[in-house]
Amino acid sequence: MKLTILGCHSATPRENKHTTSQLLETKGNLFLIDCGEGTQMQLRRSKIKFSRIQHVFISHLHGDHFYGLIGLISTFRLLGRTAPMTIYGPKGIKEIITLQLKLAKSWTNYELHFRELDATIPELLYEDENVSVSTLPLDHRVYTNGFLFNTKSLKRKINTEALGTLNLKPFHYDQLQKGLSIELENGETIENHILTLPPDPPKKYAFCSDTAFHEALIPEIKGVDLLYHEATFLEQHKDLAKKTKHSTAKEAAVIAKKAEVKQLMLGHYSNRYSDKNEFVKEASSIFENVILSEDLKSFSI
Amino acid sequence: MKLTILGCHSATPRENKHTTSQLLETKGNLFLIDCGEGTQMQLRRSKIKFSRIQHVFISHLHGDHFYGLIGLISTFRLLGRTAPMTIYGPKGIKEIITLQLKLAKSWTNYELHFRELDATIPELLYEDENVSVSTLPLDHRVYTNGFLFNTKSLKRKINTEALGTLNLKPFHYDQLQKGLSIELENGETIENHILTLPPDPPKKYAFCSDTAFHEALIPEIKGVDLLYHEATFLEQHKDLAKKTKHSTAKEAAVIAKKAEVKQLMLGHYSNRYSDKNEFVKEASSIFENVILSEDLKSFSI
Repeated sequence: MKLTILGCHSATPRENKHTTSQLLETKGNLFLIDCGEGTQMQLRRSKIKFSRIQHVFISHLHGDHFYGLIGLISTFRLLGRTAPMTIYGPKGIKEIITLQLKLAKSWTNYELHFRELDATIPELLYEDENVSVSTLPLDHRVYTNGFLFNTKSLKRKINTEALGTLNLKPFHYDQLQKGLSIELENGETIENHILTLPPDPPKKYAFCSDTAFHEALIPEIKGVDLLYHEATFLEQHKDLAKKTKHSTAKEAAVIAKKAEVKQLMLGHYSNRYSDKNEFVKEASSIFENVILSEDLKSFSI
Repeated sequence: MKLTILGCHSATPRENKHTTSQLLETKGNLFLIDCGEGTQMQLRRSKIKFSRIQHVFISHLHGDHFYGLIGLISTFRLLGRTAPMTIYGPKGIKEIITLQLKLAKSWTNYELHFRELDATIPELLYEDENVSVSTLPLDHRVYTNGFLFNTKSLKRKINTEALGTLNLKPFHYDQLQKGLSIELENGETIENHILTLPPDPPKKYAFCSDTAFHEALIPEIKGVDLLYHEATFLEQHKDLAKKTKHSTAKEAAVIAKKAEVKQLMLGHYSNRYSDKNEFVKEASSIFENVILSEDLKSFSI
């Protein structure tokens, strides 16, 4: 998986500080996670071919997480998009978008589907042969979900070096990827393990923004490769974090530690802090492997 | 009046091309005209103290003219605004904004007023002692208004050089500005014209975007100091202009000429043209005094 941060700041967008949006590339998919105002300009800056986005996951209906969605939908229409797109988000999101399309007399010429969410336990939103996406219910001032992206790796990898001069047919490759042994035209059987390597290990990415310190999350994100957890505040503003149902960097680290994740990425920074390293410093006292999200930076998972 | 262009491009915002929004400063007012996505970032870049905006005029409900409005309203809330704000725009705008505030459980802590428009003849929207604002009904695919800003200049200007050593009281200044003669403490009367100069001439700015070629506009904008008229296309795409109810640069110039305006500013350029000078070239063949709008550029009227 490749994760590109389009925006990682909270509340109000500034000249060079964009609000929450992330792009996750997996085999065969380009997922958009949240969509703050100006996300479509950030997508252009990222140079990623964003017309490939077919699934958009919106965590909650605060503006810094979805005000850019209607613009993106409209732009796809103006660019002549034909591929369908599905929006997953809290109940109400369909009414907001369709009201604006109706009043502008600008229905999309591509299929726009909505899956409105209101469950308070994790649910599976999307699944194909390579990846699944589920909700991670969070604790915020309005109904909010994080999202868990889970790649699968059922197919064994062909060991091209081991193939040598063997002249295999397409169905042989298919059998090998499924873990089966194959029979050649001359009747010879070759065992699977001779020609294949184990599948890539599955990878898990958990996106958790916005939320108060929420221990119920821990079993759901156990051992994920990367946890993005909001850290709007530092401990010095713990009272504000509690009042606004956000987290401090330290609280994010406690969740990461208890969930035994491999790496923690912080974000959703309040504009009041000028030195982002303070977030790392605070979180690192609890959990070792901490990185900072940064607008337009990409990360491999 | 001082006009600052925040965005002057059509349809889809790009990295360095913002959609329609303008700021008009008059004595005592800072008016926002249209509010495409990302306008709040452009307002920050302009360095103008945008919390002074109290009246927002939205021409129509196409996204490139108002998708930034909900973000601006939310940002004012987060910045602790207390001054009231009034939005003037087509019927439906109130529902769009209030639905989003309701679902986010984020009602503004300042008074937010809406004046929804549906008239097809010009109407007065705002008036104070210095300026009036009226609609200019346009011809587009959805209900659309331009806006006419008309400064007043009822007060004569004090000729400070003529005052010499006269020791005037505040009420004397008041009388002079109103065109009255004054009586000094020693009983002497001084005629008004000795101590004053004529008022500044009133100024008129007409904002006309988006519209097809629309001759009914001409009497309404007769002789304005500056006409901003959309020029989405060049003549080579006249068919597209007709189909989408937009104007070509030449058509904008014909309106400017027939209305005998002092200066014509073009904008709302389609992204298909790389050389903006083509717009000036085309319009100049009809009307002499043509300028181009440009993101973050200011103009005196």
